[in-house]
Amino acid sequence: MTTTPTDFQHWASLHQQRIEAQLQAVLPSAEVAPQRLHQAMRYAALGGGKRVRPLLAFAAGEITRADAGRVALAGAAVELIHAYSLVHDDLPCMDDDMLRRGKPACHVEFDEATALLVGDALHSLAFHLLADYRLADDLSVQLEMVKLLATAAGSRGMAGGQAIDLAAVGANLTLPELEFMHIHKTGALIRAAMLLGARCGTALATAELGQLDHFAKYIGLAFQVVDDVLDTEATTATLGKTAGKDEKNNKPTYVSIMGVTEAKRLAGELRRDALAALDGFGERALRLRQLADFIVLRKF
Amino acid sequence: MTTTPTDFQHWASLHQQRIEAQLQAVLPSAEVAPQRLHQAMRYAALGGGKRVRPLLAFAAGEITRADAGRVALAGAAVELIHAYSLVHDDLPCMDDDMLRRGKPACHVEFDEATALLVGDALHSLAFHLLADYRLADDLSVQLEMVKLLATAAGSRGMAGGQAIDLAAVGANLTLPELEFMHIHKTGALIRAAMLLGARCGTALATAELGQLDHFAKYIGLAFQVVDDVLDTEATTATLGKTAGKDEKNNKPTYVSIMGVTEAKRLAGELRRDALAALDGFGERALRLRQLADFIVLRKF
Repeated sequence: MTTTPTDFQHWASLHQQRIEAQLQAVLPSAEVAPQRLHQAMRYAALGGGKRVRPLLAFAAGEITRADAGRVALAGAAVELIHAYSLVHDDLPCMDDDMLRRGKPACHVEFDEATALLVGDALHSLAFHLLADYRLADDLSVQLEMVKLLATAAGSRGMAGGQAIDLAAVGANLTLPELEFMHIHKTGALIRAAMLLGARCGTALATAELGQLDHFAKYIGLAFQVVDDVLDTEATTATLGKTAGKDEKNNKPTYVSIMGVTEAKRLAGELRRDALAALDGFGERALRLRQLADFIVLRKF
Repeated sequence: MTTTPTDFQHWASLHQQRIEAQLQAVLPSAEVAPQRLHQAMRYAALGGGKRVRPLLAFAAGEITRADAGRVALAGAAVELIHAYSLVHDDLPCMDDDMLRRGKPACHVEFDEATALLVGDALHSLAFHLLADYRLADDLSVQLEMVKLLATAAGSRGMAGGQAIDLAAVGANLTLPELEFMHIHKTGALIRAAMLLGARCGTALATAELGQLDHFAKYIGLAFQVVDDVLDTEATTATLGKTAGKDEKNNKPTYVSIMGVTEAKRLAGELRRDALAALDGFGERALRLRQLADFIVLRKF
């Protein structure tokens, strides 16, 4: 493998721009009625974020030689679900956070009712994308993609993870309980991003899908462990969201359960497990391997 | 047409039971984790409501000789979108209502954060249904159904209508502006219910789809006019939701703009227009005609 960090930076930057352009194109114009809602949807979904989920979709799409135009749409759908969840999460009745991606949260910049509707409308728009464009040669595969995203976003996926998170405030979770929460709260959508990206291309054998699933599980958990470490160690300025809020909100984290040193060790271990799951894919998994490093070694 | 009110009551009751059973079957069990979220989803979606949208789906499905099992699933998907919108509407940052379908609103019975997640999870579940079962012989039609529901629920449909509604509080709307709001807020989902029901069966000619569209538009507006009249004239006990809240919330309504007498006259006119749109369908539109009467003549 002859690749350099510079090469990955270039790839990531190109694909981040591609997703930004895709979101720009599919979000209704702020000139179209209801203007304020559309303006707020664009505020919440554009111009920020590392776009980790779409990058994972592109990287998984390289394994199945997927058309990048299709993956951009599938990745944008996943990112819209992610963006809606952030808007709803930041609301006063949830995490009550004022800051997101270095800007005032949507309900601060607009108002609570608008933010609620922004989340709802981004949520619908994600499914609109998955149905409005041809994303797979076989339409039954495309319907499976709709189902996959609905499952990942729903009560046995992301929304369910949020509910478990709510119930965990102030509780003493065990490590398996914390893992169960994160597999739902962030893991489900990360897994969906990868599988949707892969589904845009040639069919994978069941064993290969299983390997991707393992990678998604490990990298999703690693992502969360690193998030918890950063929430402790980084500043609000570098994070672009409020630092130290898990402790303030009395939320159980990997750091609160095992301490920073052990959490960092766990992140490294999860990275090794994630990389091992890609062994059978050879060069096709180059970008996934680099993304694993990006996710675990990131400083913000 | 040899039909009696009793016959319609029987048909409506049978199909309301069928939708209730369908929702029972597709909503996750309250025994499955996260239990409290699933319990709250069932609380919000089961055991209440007139199920007008699913009834419209069944009635439109009779025009295309659709399989009733398929229509039950499509109708349940629409009803889940409707149920999510009620849960979010009742939240303190929106209409701040304590009562829904004769019971405490979801955020009162549970809590605000749970109600927010209930709405989100019901929203995802609706799309899950449309992708998880075979609803049309032609899969491209089924993907169009997904797109149709996403459009109807989104920023240029129901969620957009809510945003227009928010902006209208305390404003002096003209009749066309009020109509524009309701075509989005309630009309889009009523139209989607009918088109989804019809799409479960044989294909309709473009002209026939246009007629159904006209019916949906008129009956959706009639529905809203009657709602506004009932909000003025009925009691909280018979409505099962807080009466008089439009006036309290300083919301423009058909009654506030044109008075009760004129609003009742308008409802009758919209009913006639709706029925006229069905002229070409003959006996196949019997249930739609009866539903038009049910919607306009209902007392609660």
